[in-house]
Amino acid sequence: MPELNQLTYGIVGLGIMGGSIAKSIRANVFDMPGACGEILACDVNALSLGTAAHDGVIDEAFAPDDAALMLPRCDFVCVCLYPHATLRFLQEHRAHFKTGAVVTDISGVKTELEEHVRGALRDDVDFVFGHPMAGGAKEGYVNSNASCFEGRNYILMPQPWNTAEDLSLVKQLISAMGFSRIVETDCRSHDHKIAFTSQLCHVIASALVESAEDEHITEFGGGSFEDLTRIAMINAPLWTELFLANRTELLAHIGSFEAQLDRIKTLIADGDAPELELYLSDVRKRRMTMGTLVSRDS
Amino acid sequence: MPELNQLTYGIVGLGIMGGSIAKSIRANVFDMPGACGEILACDVNALSLGTAAHDGVIDEAFAPDDAALMLPRCDFVCVCLYPHATLRFLQEHRAHFKTGAVVTDISGVKTELEEHVRGALRDDVDFVFGHPMAGGAKEGYVNSNASCFEGRNYILMPQPWNTAEDLSLVKQLISAMGFSRIVETDCRSHDHKIAFTSQLCHVIASALVESAEDEHITEFGGGSFEDLTRIAMINAPLWTELFLANRTELLAHIGSFEAQLDRIKTLIADGDAPELELYLSDVRKRRMTMGTLVSRDS
Repeated sequence: MPELNQLTYGIVGLGIMGGSIAKSIRANVFDMPGACGEILACDVNALSLGTAAHDGVIDEAFAPDDAALMLPRCDFVCVCLYPHATLRFLQEHRAHFKTGAVVTDISGVKTELEEHVRGALRDDVDFVFGHPMAGGAKEGYVNSNASCFEGRNYILMPQPWNTAEDLSLVKQLISAMGFSRIVETDCRSHDHKIAFTSQLCHVIASALVESAEDEHITEFGGGSFEDLTRIAMINAPLWTELFLANRTELLAHIGSFEAQLDRIKTLIADGDAPELELYLSDVRKRRMTMGTLVSRDS
Repeated sequence: MPELNQLTYGIVGLGIMGGSIAKSIRANVFDMPGACGEILACDVNALSLGTAAHDGVIDEAFAPDDAALMLPRCDFVCVCLYPHATLRFLQEHRAHFKTGAVVTDISGVKTELEEHVRGALRDDVDFVFGHPMAGGAKEGYVNSNASCFEGRNYILMPQPWNTAEDLSLVKQLISAMGFSRIVETDCRSHDHKIAFTSQLCHVIASALVESAEDEHITEFGGGSFEDLTRIAMINAPLWTELFLANRTELLAHIGSFEAQLDRIKTLIADGDAPELELYLSDVRKRRMTMGTLVSRDS
């Protein structure tokens, strides 16, 4: 099996995720003895590329039109684009990947991609579905950092075509970048779970912000509103795409949430203190049982 | 005006809030030169009292039955009990407060209290409605700490009977404890605003926890669900009381939130990408405009 520190990595899309992956490889993989790999990156933003090259995060920068020059050199490609753009990139550059390359993505929805990716790729390229569960309110290369993956979850969706060796390599890289847990599932389950943990939460945060009477309400804030709406500093084009690409799952979860909200509303309207207290006791017990992220809750 | 560091403070209820207030006074007020004040505390929990006395946080401990011995000595009393218990305490101990004492509370709902407090107190005691906007998932004296107020908001609801001198004293203490912003309003506005920033958020977090299919869902978490449900480790008796005491305001806010949720749901169901993106762009813009808490978001 190849050594992680001897590979040439290609980062497609040097935003907050691509940038953090590049920085993390630089800090955590290329600090190993004998490292002789390289990091190449491709982005529309020349400033991001220039900064990353200047800072020694990447070894070489490519404009999008030059991706065809970058890809044939890359043993490991991370496509860090929006979901639809990820598929378009794979289709457009079908001919340009190196034979034997491992290609992975970071897309927040997978089922749509799964339907098309097999036809988009050559048989001598191994595509591994991945979803690093690290994000936040910030965007762009300028906000990327090497340590943002520490303690985080990474979801992998192995496919019949993936070789054991390639999956192992991907997992080694994920661990080296600092993720503390790798969860394996299939694309459909991923989309079902993520519609709850991620997309529903963004819908709720957005609705909460819009239901505020005015923008000075945080003068009366004690942390709850701030916690619930941190993710409402939302990237509108990306989340529009994510919500719509996973709409069936998301609508079902919104429905379940509305039913619970309605239950609480009824208990409050009825002034039913004993039942309300029982309900809240169950909430507390369930939440206590649920795991927490090491990095944010500690 | 009396000096903060020469007063005798009485803390009624040495839980996470009363404990943090005691520790903060000890650390931030009694470290001033010439300090000769005292901190007395009263609680049902003998272990909390013993620990606080042993650690030098309080000077003297009183069981609830001995509150009548403590109160006549206190220049400044912080009643750190649940809302209904606060009123009961004031009524029961009407005769025991020191002449000229400043008494304040931390209750999360005020209108109910406002209706009854005037009749409950003697004219020679100045009651100041206060609400320190600091809380969280944790409870009990064991989780109290001197620095949890830093960067937080404090809401004051001055009343016609409050003297300028007493209000000034309260504000000095609030600032000394580390709060960064004092917001003044009336009890009705307080309850209206807090129903949104605090109670609605707890309702949403609770409904979200209960709508989870299972308790292993956090394996698929990236921080959003964790952020939105941190406050769901809820103190059920306290929040039952808060929700019901403020039910009219809370139900109105739940209604507004549901209307926004319904709007998003419709946009998703219709696959209306342009309108959904516009909606989310507005969410982002509004959230960016809203202030953030210094201590948690920085």
